[in-house]
Amino acid sequence: MPLIPMPLTVPPPSVTTPANNLLARIAERIGEQYVLTEPKEIALYLREERGLYDGRTPAVVKPGTTEEVAFIVAACAEAGMPIVPQGGNTGLVGGQMPFGQLLLSLARLDRIRQVDPVDMTMTVEAGCILDSIHRVAEDVDCLFPLHIASQGSCRIGGNLATNAGGTAVLRYGNARELVLGLEVVLADGRIWNGLKRLRKNNAGYDLKQLFLGTEGTLGIITAAVLKLFPRPVQRVTAFAAVPDPAAALALMRRLRAQAGDALTTFELMASFGLETVLKHMPGTVRPLAGRHPWYVLAELSAPTRAFDLGSLIEQVLVESSESGEVDDATIASSESQAAALWRLREDMSEAQKHEGGSIKHDVSVPVSRVPDFLTRALAAVEAEMPDVRPCPFGHVGDGNIHFNLSQPAGMAKADFLARWAGFNRIVHDIVIEMDGSIAAEHGIGRLKREELAHYADPVALELMEQLKNALDPAGLLNPGKVIAGRGGDDI
Amino acid sequence: MPLIPMPLTVPPPSVTTPANNLLARIAERIGEQYVLTEPKEIALYLREERGLYDGRTPAVVKPGTTEEVAFIVAACAEAGMPIVPQGGNTGLVGGQMPFGQLLLSLARLDRIRQVDPVDMTMTVEAGCILDSIHRVAEDVDCLFPLHIASQGSCRIGGNLATNAGGTAVLRYGNARELVLGLEVVLADGRIWNGLKRLRKNNAGYDLKQLFLGTEGTLGIITAAVLKLFPRPVQRVTAFAAVPDPAAALALMRRLRAQAGDALTTFELMASFGLETVLKHMPGTVRPLAGRHPWYVLAELSAPTRAFDLGSLIEQVLVESSESGEVDDATIASSESQAAALWRLREDMSEAQKHEGGSIKHDVSVPVSRVPDFLTRALAAVEAEMPDVRPCPFGHVGDGNIHFNLSQPAGMAKADFLARWAGFNRIVHDIVIEMDGSIAAEHGIGRLKREELAHYADPVALELMEQLKNALDPAGLLNPGKVIAGRGGDDI
Repeated sequence: MPLIPMPLTVPPPSVTTPANNLLARIAERIGEQYVLTEPKEIALYLREERGLYDGRTPAVVKPGTTEEVAFIVAACAEAGMPIVPQGGNTGLVGGQMPFGQLLLSLARLDRIRQVDPVDMTMTVEAGCILDSIHRVAEDVDCLFPLHIASQGSCRIGGNLATNAGGTAVLRYGNARELVLGLEVVLADGRIWNGLKRLRKNNAGYDLKQLFLGTEGTLGIITAAVLKLFPRPVQRVTAFAAVPDPAAALALMRRLRAQAGDALTTFELMASFGLETVLKHMPGTVRPLAGRHPWYVLAELSAPTRAFDLGSLIEQVLVESSESGEVDDATIASSESQAAALWRLREDMSEAQKHEGGSIKHDVSVPVSRVPDFLTRALAAVEAEMPDVRPCPFGHVGDGNIHFNLSQPAGMAKADFLARWAGFNRIVHDIVIEMDGSIAAEHGIGRLKREELAHYADPVALELMEQLKNALDPAGLLNPGKVIAGRGGDDI
Repeated sequence: MPLIPMPLTVPPPSVTTPANNLLARIAERIGEQYVLTEPKEIALYLREERGLYDGRTPAVVKPGTTEEVAFIVAACAEAGMPIVPQGGNTGLVGGQMPFGQLLLSLARLDRIRQVDPVDMTMTVEAGCILDSIHRVAEDVDCLFPLHIASQGSCRIGGNLATNAGGTAVLRYGNARELVLGLEVVLADGRIWNGLKRLRKNNAGYDLKQLFLGTEGTLGIITAAVLKLFPRPVQRVTAFAAVPDPAAALALMRRLRAQAGDALTTFELMASFGLETVLKHMPGTVRPLAGRHPWYVLAELSAPTRAFDLGSLIEQVLVESSESGEVDDATIASSESQAAALWRLREDMSEAQKHEGGSIKHDVSVPVSRVPDFLTRALAAVEAEMPDVRPCPFGHVGDGNIHFNLSQPAGMAKADFLARWAGFNRIVHDIVIEMDGSIAAEHGIGRLKREELAHYADPVALELMEQLKNALDPAGLLNPGKVIAGRGGDDI
């Protein structure tokens, strides 16, 4: 696994290569300004957030319409050129990185095709940035509830191709559940138009499921019909110190029993995470006096003022405090205070970068087993490396923990990162023993394909192969991602 | 289309047929009392609710475990014997009917394997009756929100294989959205164990989507992990007279704006439907004075007493009345009154049987287009047959209308039913023009496969074929269902 970024070594393609003829055909169709081959122009597309991979590609092509995507895919199929689709390049597992394949950017497909506040649907193209979708929904007094850290730059096509999760899954589900229809370019360049705005549709197989969450390996999503929800008019944010993860779960159950669907976010973080944010992120403020082992960020929201969320959460926190589940808590009394509490959670990944190397795990277990998982996993990694600084946090309401490990203070970063695979094995073994998943919300991409091959049920792997063979027999769509041992990879 | 039931003509299989050797092998494994061949014993499995089809089968086999299902499927694959899986035999489109194939009943797989009120999950076998799942959920203070008319006898495997809808989709989604994991026997007899209890799992393709809603044509569901929800502790049911479907939609928007997620049911019915129920169903009571053109049944429910649903709905109905959306309304003041209001909606299909032949359409359009659809479709069917008595009702909140047509009074039933295909074409043409679906919640089965072939996008049909070929290349699983032109049908 290439943990140290490789130098960017992409020579402009020679005029005599077949790729070059292909690129000329594509340039003729979509405009030569949208076929990028200069290293400077394409560098941005080939580096990803974590610095785990540098990509290589003969060109970045940027079609502006679904028909242009279809033309490119058909031309590539004819030329035998594999393709990596890319949205906002915010993926955390390298799914969007080419290793010699053509990079197809969906960024120019960024039109909102339709918004309907009665149907509560929005039809968007794959390149729309998530935040802009939020704003368009708000303009018609609706909510599109997918909220993830990268929402200012990620694009909806990528969110859907990876079945993104985030902080509102507890109430609204993963990206998959927020989609009514899809438009997809298939491996041979055909366009499947499944842009239905229907709440119920059992007319044959639900084909959109083939493309949601399959990371561009079975087709390229070009547009989608999204579900909207009533826009919340009340929102209450609380930050609580709890003695342990079991207490956090008890608090969650209490909140859900009282607030029902109004409980939209319930996040857990360890003391080390909060201290790291307070230490490194300018403007952050300690929310509660003293230090506590664990913290919870909870949010209630509702599209009605028929009941008072503020007094509800206050009452639950008092009850939880009396029964020893909560040590201390604060409720935001303004939007800016709520934003300040959210920053403590949202800045976690950024803050962790200041503490040196980080080995990450995006895992899930059944919700009830989160406390047990944390106990076992913390003990196991500390047994492996006593000075390691675990920074577990995440969506405890979904059983999804980002079990991150910061390097011991003073250790060389490269020495720590060299232990990546070993720590993966330790943590993932526990996850699998507990009926969990080694890829809760970030996907498999390039990073975890060998882990998937190692842990997945052989029948499941066979089914995935059968699907890949059925829909992309030549293996031209995002090869080497999700499924190991199918080439597509020259690093 | 065989609208008139055919006589049951199933001779016991001759001792010299290959089927007989197969049956002997199966009997040896699962016990001969579970291999039924006597016409009397199997008659119940071969007649369905609507009387559209009578089935034929060499035998009904009733395995008791997943392993026994796998054994049977493997033995059938070896012998080239096609299989029709059947749950509670409540399907409305003939998907569960064999026409010469072996009938595999899942009824004996009826164990609840696990219930967890913290994870809010229940692991059930395919043969569990829906109502019994409701009760087990209630026992742990949870809700399993799938509610359909046949819940007293339908089985969850069939509900999932057909992606059942019902009266709570508005809030909780279709059956597909209520599933976290599946166990499936594949066409060659392998077992895929995907019984994960995870809220987030992006470890490879989401394989359960292949089997949910594909009507047993790609695999046989043997068990599932279901999502549970907090159990409602408040429930308010109202029945309102509205001038037209547009007013009904306006009322729905108002309710949703005020009640948010508490709006769990919103059903529309025409005057003819209500009068038919009142006329034929003993014990039903007229809910509002006089006759009105359209009626709405609305239900609010919440898992908390933090706010008062009764005063909320009262206030909304007053506002709606003042703005002319509601002509009259009543709110149930007891559980028995609520049950009486529900009966008016639930008895609709049964009551319609007393008015002679009924030609049915289970269609959906975008929610905002329901009023326009009803105007156009009513005009079109009345132009075709001036005395026809339309009985549209259904889940208007999901855009799903059961556009049923009762025969003209005094017409011969057979003469009316002979017009089935013609009326289908008229109604379905309008549905498709309005971007709707000809199969909203009942599925395709045997009844609508030619309609699907007629209306579906050719690319969609090709994709369905590709999937069928990939997962069931020999065509042994529920042949002749969903996809037309693949045999499996000898009537």
